[in-house]
Amino acid sequence: MSKSIGGPEIERLILLLARLPGLGPRSARKAALALVKRREDLLEPLASAMREAADKIVTCETCGNVDTTNPCTLCQDPRRDPSLIVVVEEVGDLWALERAGVLRAQYHVLGGHLSPLDGIGPEQLNIPKLVERAHASNVTEIILALNATVEGQSTLHYVKEMLAGSDVTISEIQKGVPVGGELDYLDEGTLSTAIKSRRPI
Amino acid sequence: MSKSIGGPEIERLILLLARLPGLGPRSARKAALALVKRREDLLEPLASAMREAADKIVTCETCGNVDTTNPCTLCQDPRRDPSLIVVVEEVGDLWALERAGVLRAQYHVLGGHLSPLDGIGPEQLNIPKLVERAHASNVTEIILALNATVEGQSTLHYVKEMLAGSDVTISEIQKGVPVGGELDYLDEGTLSTAIKSRRPI
Repeated sequence: MSKSIGGPEIERLILLLARLPGLGPRSARKAALALVKRREDLLEPLASAMREAADKIVTCETCGNVDTTNPCTLCQDPRRDPSLIVVVEEVGDLWALERAGVLRAQYHVLGGHLSPLDGIGPEQLNIPKLVERAHASNVTEIILALNATVEGQSTLHYVKEMLAGSDVTISEIQKGVPVGGELDYLDEGTLSTAIKSRRPI
Repeated sequence: MSKSIGGPEIERLILLLARLPGLGPRSARKAALALVKRREDLLEPLASAMREAADKIVTCETCGNVDTTNPCTLCQDPRRDPSLIVVVEEVGDLWALERAGVLRAQYHVLGGHLSPLDGIGPEQLNIPKLVERAHASNVTEIILALNATVEGQSTLHYVKEMLAGSDVTISEIQKGVPVGGELDYLDEGTLSTAIKSRRPI
């Protein structure tokens, strides 16, 4: 786009939108176009929502979740089991577990996984705080709900070692055939794991 | 997502992002996650850029383009041919033509195409202003650069009729095989048009 069309404001908007996951240069232009065409009912509220989010959202110093309060809503929720901490890689994983609504526990967000090639070592992850929490008298179990990827699993082993000195049960989530999954479409690793972890019915 | 996670601010952000073209509920959540994770280098500048766009961008009363000035930068550009007006459906079409850089003319954005099923009649389009511009003494040609779709073409015929009283040459853009296009992949309508509009070489 030539610099003169729509002025630098629109061009800047397109460049920034293109940095969102899922949007490339072309779809960012389409999104910007929708925004400038629908200024009242889309651009205006989105600008306000982003400003509010930028101003209010903080990282919870206890668990690493993002929220508008610190400690976050989940850490402050008295109905949650204080004895159980679920460790996840990213905030998105926490959201996914909450959507599944499978347990009402505390969380701990590591902020990623070990990845030496990307320069992410233990010191980049929120591990010391987890060790500290693990030693709190009321915690009895820590579930490592990390991705079943190579990086997730090597992070799992590292975190497990770090927690070795604490007096809590450490568990990992089960691997196997995803619910609704068809064997024909699954990789060998999943199938092999599902067979090895078979259980009597 | 349960209402408690991240608070209403993040939920509102996701809902609004999901209304952008190209983003569904799932990708909107991924985008929101990227935004709240990268607050300094993504959320903050994007919030500012949107606020600035929302505050500054106006529709040009002459041509219907969006810009931060009214008349827009293109209408004010003295290097553009004032005798030639290129009529397009949407601002995105104007951007596309400018990217192609094929001519330095005036533009006129209709703001859509006739679509009776969607309740879009002539009164929803920016046609009266075009008729007014067509009667200005310095205008000699109007190019109808509308989409080669059923709606675009019926709009073309309507606009052509509306301009019948003015003393200007009215032209339409050529239809045919797109540059780089392979015949095998083109629809019958395009091929038939390309054959009918053949020219000696």
